[in-house]
Amino acid sequence: MQQNQVSRVTHHRLEEETALRAARYTGEGRIEVGEAEPRTPAADEVTIRVAYNGICGTDLHIVQGHMDARVAMPAVIGHEMSGVVEQVGAEVTGLATGAPVTVMPLRWCGECASCLAGHQHICQRLDFVGIDSPGALQELWTVPASLVVPLPAGLSLQHAALVEPLAVAVHDVRRSRLREGETAVVIGGGPIGQLIAVVARATGAAVILAEPDAERRAFAAAQGATVVDPIAEDLAGIVEAQTAGAGADVVFEVAGTRGTALDATRHARTRGRVVFVAIHPEPVPVDLHRIFWRELEVLGARVYEREDFERAVALLAEDAVPADALITRVVQLDETQTAFDALLSAAAMKILVDVQGADEQGAER
Amino acid sequence: MQQNQVSRVTHHRLEEETALRAARYTGEGRIEVGEAEPRTPAADEVTIRVAYNGICGTDLHIVQGHMDARVAMPAVIGHEMSGVVEQVGAEVTGLATGAPVTVMPLRWCGECASCLAGHQHICQRLDFVGIDSPGALQELWTVPASLVVPLPAGLSLQHAALVEPLAVAVHDVRRSRLREGETAVVIGGGPIGQLIAVVARATGAAVILAEPDAERRAFAAAQGATVVDPIAEDLAGIVEAQTAGAGADVVFEVAGTRGTALDATRHARTRGRVVFVAIHPEPVPVDLHRIFWRELEVLGARVYEREDFERAVALLAEDAVPADALITRVVQLDETQTAFDALLSAAAMKILVDVQGADEQGAER
Repeated sequence: MQQNQVSRVTHHRLEEETALRAARYTGEGRIEVGEAEPRTPAADEVTIRVAYNGICGTDLHIVQGHMDARVAMPAVIGHEMSGVVEQVGAEVTGLATGAPVTVMPLRWCGECASCLAGHQHICQRLDFVGIDSPGALQELWTVPASLVVPLPAGLSLQHAALVEPLAVAVHDVRRSRLREGETAVVIGGGPIGQLIAVVARATGAAVILAEPDAERRAFAAAQGATVVDPIAEDLAGIVEAQTAGAGADVVFEVAGTRGTALDATRHARTRGRVVFVAIHPEPVPVDLHRIFWRELEVLGARVYEREDFERAVALLAEDAVPADALITRVVQLDETQTAFDALLSAAAMKILVDVQGADEQGAER
Repeated sequence: MQQNQVSRVTHHRLEEETALRAARYTGEGRIEVGEAEPRTPAADEVTIRVAYNGICGTDLHIVQGHMDARVAMPAVIGHEMSGVVEQVGAEVTGLATGAPVTVMPLRWCGECASCLAGHQHICQRLDFVGIDSPGALQELWTVPASLVVPLPAGLSLQHAALVEPLAVAVHDVRRSRLREGETAVVIGGGPIGQLIAVVARATGAAVILAEPDAERRAFAAAQGATVVDPIAEDLAGIVEAQTAGAGADVVFEVAGTRGTALDATRHARTRGRVVFVAIHPEPVPVDLHRIFWRELEVLGARVYEREDFERAVALLAEDAVPADALITRVVQLDETQTAFDALLSAAAMKILVDVQGADEQGAER
């Protein structure tokens, strides 16, 4: 199949491509794989041959129909990706065909109050590429060159598909101002919780991770975290014992339940920081008295900034992240629907879609 | 009556005093005025002849019985005070009989994790003097010399009774990192809300104060705040219009209702700060999605540190605070019960108890 050719060495002209494929969310839980509509890059754009695309919690929300009001169907989604530059626009400098890259999927307006204050990543009119505009679950993807982040030569393209979720974790940890020698509590051991624990450990902090699933606890323990089963064990008591009665310097609430949101503030020391990482679409009860009593800081953290993306690339390149262990499975583009179904029903960590079918040929890595 | 003598110039020996009085909370809404039990100061203590004591929201909670588990009845309460040094312990330096003073009513253990981290004011075993130990509603009050804060000669003792609540406001504003040129929204125009607005204005910030009571709005407007009736007007729209669509830099939630707690996060700009000043004894719904979406910071603020007390003294001394207007009424010690009843039933700002009966004689100010 021509569309499965590995493109790292071959430069295609887009108009010569035939039967390029894309996976599209078409509503009501369905993903359909059909013909893509590749676009020749404009002067300031780059076309990328997508290698891998990871499936994210937000993608699950989209496919479950929770975000139908925001997503224009049929929608090519996907925003955790790696690939190789296929073609560059006339005015693009510093990026050459064949270069391995990832994409920071944020486009901002540059004009709103948030952008003018220097917080472009949370622009008030943010275009999250892969949600608000077409994403990476297609063989050729054309994006503004400003979004492209080069990858070092030694980094595998499978591992590089973890840059985006890792950048989320890097941003969360940076917002928390966690320092070497401090103690962090991570509530929830899903992919983002695990990545936060990894970044916290890489920062030199002690990590206590609370997670009811034994496999996920084992995963975190292997990365050096103290693990706690919050159902069977007394998390508050363990945090207190490990911190000489003070409480943790930072608490990350990544589980997203009403119970954990209420409990998160309990584990922080006086003047400690609490980051609510999990998304709570509706207001939930928060212990404002504890926030007052201990003069806590609650910090919102959303997506990432360029420096977070670059630190994520560096952490993966220096093997600070258990990337192979995090990638539960790699599926083919045709199996994208299956991958969503599997993630909705089981506690997989990260499933990648092999967009080019490279792994079938064993040629990519 | 001997106990009504003004002591600024006369030095009493405690054992010579007769029939000194104290007001005590005896449970079930009752305040009883009876004989005091003055105590000669230990080597590191100071005895103060209390001039004025302001009644605080916390005192109202105590007298309503909400804090009976914490308060040892019969309890001499009161912690917003001014007075004159009556006698100093043998080892006390820098404080002389006759000096006008106030008291920062916090005693910390010096040994808990919070103290060791430098946050003594929120010591994990904090003794809030006037709640956890005897307070200022008595003619002679003996406290550790380390709690005593000298007052400048020009500051009236009535005004000086506002130092403690003003220090709360100074601390709240300092925790918010409010800067000159920024915009602050203050939700709630009671005494603390008004003082926060005053401190914010003194910091050089624009203030939008939301308060349903017309008199309180007029008070804030006279201090230079833009005032909004949150029932009749669209607070969110006004904040947006006044900040070019950005939202406020800082929001102070001082009203303490479920509705205002939920709404507070709505008015802050991206990366804005929200201080929940009002005390919510039970968890209440908070808009964590907004905190995430705009990367807000929620800051707990409790009591004050020495520098807040000193700035409060300075602000009062330089007439930056509308002290006369804030003092709705001055009552005699015998009328303390009446003052509590009045505060519970009407929207008075600040009622002072004239502990020595000086105002009856017209001698104090």
